[in-house]
Amino acid sequence: MTHPELQVSQWFNTTNDISLKGLAGKVIALEVFQMLCPGCVRHGLPLAQKIATTFPQEKVAVLGLHSVFEHHNAMTPVSLQAFLHEYQIDFPVGVDEAGKGNIPKTMEAFQLRGTPSLLLFDTAGRLRAHHLGNLSELALGAEIATLLSEGAANETQAEGMGARSECNAEGCMI
Amino acid sequence: MTHPELQVSQWFNTTNDISLKGLAGKVIALEVFQMLCPGCVRHGLPLAQKIATTFPQEKVAVLGLHSVFEHHNAMTPVSLQAFLHEYQIDFPVGVDEAGKGNIPKTMEAFQLRGTPSLLLFDTAGRLRAHHLGNLSELALGAEIATLLSEGAANETQAEGMGARSECNAEGCMI
Amino acid sequence: MTHPELQVSQWFNTTNDISLKGLAGKVIALEVFQMLCPGCVRHGLPLAQKIATTFPQEKVAVLGLHSVFEHHNAMTPVSLQAFLHEYQIDFPVGVDEAGKGNIPKTMEAFQLRGTPSLLLFDTAGRLRAHHLGNLSELALGAEIATLLSEGAANETQAEGMGARSECNAEGCMI
Amino acid sequence: MTHPELQVSQWFNTTNDISLKGLAGKVIALEVFQMLCPGCVRHGLPLAQKIATTFPQEKVAVLGLHSVFEHHNAMTPVSLQAFLHEYQIDFPVGVDEAGKGNIPKTMEAFQLRGTPSLLLFDTAGRLRAHHLGNLSELALGAEIATLLSEGAANETQAEGMGARSECNAEGCMI
Repeated sequence: MTHPELQVSQWFNTTNDISLKGLAGKVIALEVFQMLCPGCVRHGLPLAQKIATTFPQEKVAVLGLHSVFEHHNAMTPVSLQAFLHEYQIDFPVGVDEAGKGNIPKTMEAFQLRGTPSLLLFDTAGRLRAHHLGNLSELALGAEIATLLSEGAANETQAEGMGARSECNAEGCMI
Repeated sequence: MTHPELQVSQWFNTTNDISLKGLAGKVIALEVFQMLCPGCVRHGLPLAQKIATTFPQEKVAVLGLHSVFEHHNAMTPVSLQAFLHEYQIDFPVGVDEAGKGNIPKTMEAFQLRGTPSLLLFDTAGRLRAHHLGNLSELALGAEIATLLSEGAANETQAEGMGARSECNAEGCMI
Repeated sequence: MTHPELQVSQWFNTTNDISLKGLAGKVIALEVFQMLCPGCVRHGLPLAQKIATTFPQEKVAVLGLHSVFEHHNAMTPVSLQAFLHEYQIDFPVGVDEAGKGNIPKTMEAFQLRGTPSLLLFDTAGRLRAHHLGNLSELALGAEIATLLSEGAANETQAEGMGARSECNAEGCMI
Repeated sequence: MTHPELQVSQWFNTTNDISLKGLAGKVIALEVFQMLCPGCVRHGLPLAQKIATTFPQEKVAVLGLHSVFEHHNAMTPVSLQAFLHEYQIDFPVGVDEAGKGNIPKTMEAFQLRGTPSLLLFDTAGRLRAHHLGNLSELALGAEIATLLSEGAANETQAEGMGARSECNAEGCMI
């Protein structure tokens, strides 16, 4: 895995300990948002919800990451919890761990430039797409399916070859 | 005035002390909302913003009232202030004063059933319409203009008659 | 009446002979469109349909005028009839009479610049508003209600005065 | 090829003779519509246009088929040509050949139940999906990309095997 891991202080909508590494084998759609960001509420989060209902859970994992970089007092975990309830967001959402300045740790590690950001990871755990702002659903659907197809092809290939020796606990290398 | 007055613990976007009574002479559009209510964010508040930009301020006063009846810890004045900033809401917004139970005082006094609620008051200070939920813009535009026209007609009539003796400090009676 | 009259070669959705003059006493909303104009299909005609369902028929008359100024062979009355059926447009629609050039007669007489155009006439038959393109529903609802209020005020005034001698077959003068 | 071929009396937006067979090797998205069908104008055709701009032309061919089964006099090729111009539809559109009754020949051969219908063919020329009515863009994007991935996998496999002997002039069999 050539990219950072999630650094989360608290999870909602899950009792599991979630990591990108632990989801290897699935395509991951990571929606990075702030609850008071209008573009996140209008576009980013509804799109993440559609991904969750369109693709089977065992193939595509949808995660939210609440990366607050402004108005920190206004977007506390208490407010976030009510927000998730009211907007009926039921996929796992992590609170990005506070950093030294305004930018939380995961956001800084991935060098994200704002919210909403949508990150796509392939079944081998590699970061494959990074979108900021509003997206074409048609193009996004195609991107996710392409990553799924690659994963299926890899599995078939691996089965044929007997082993995927290039994959280790950190993920899979090219 | 045959209806209750606003009971507000804190105002945003204004330095004035605002009351329904004090706005007599104007049509008042009062948008009652909660910052984490999806219908308020999608429909109610954008409609209130359109009213504010469509009608002249000296004729139609647009007010917001933050009437929190659930998730009180999540929708504090600190969170509301950031919300108003992020959603670029610049008309005056009052925080409905906490009541004994979950329902805040103004909401209880007006017997409102939920959010978003839009209340319209005529130029004589009478409550003339009370809408819950999503609205037709065309019909609402007509309602506001009708109240404005009545106000103008009353003024003309009053000028002709010399005085509007039925109006006192409390407002005007039918 | 200081503006031109409709020049129509054929009416749909009515068996009456319709004229602006004949509708004096009502506010008239005249939607000028072409059946193959995307802006008319997306915005203009749906708005005219909303006017028809929002305001009472005895107060606001909604009319369509099919003013074809391009692709004349493609937008014949036969095609228009099927179009009105498919789009469920049930207010009266007239076919603007062919002119010498590409521009039909009513369109030329009113000096319209394109479609969709929405013309509003007050209860005294005067042309009061002329909109080209997409419109704010809130503002339009207010415009129509203002014209209705003026009409009501005129009636009240006229009743008080005993007669509306200033109205003749051509409409009503101030 | 286990499905019927297009039966077209006239093509617009192309000077080539187009057939499903001739497009083997590409994924084909065939949008079946009527120019006066509101659902086609609102959803079906805009979606076909998005497919055309989202996927590369050398991989995904977008075709329109004007399958008129009602109001035949109203939706003639002359009217269709103006419609395509006004709605800026620039992918190839064929006129489904008139049948003995109201249903045109291709529509009948494919046993389509209405418009808009979207048919997807894989790179081997097989009919793989048949949608009637409004569609999820996210799901459709995924479907198209999946067909593209299969095609790519087949090519790789075929290259490895030396030949795709199961493909003949009629297309490719499983």
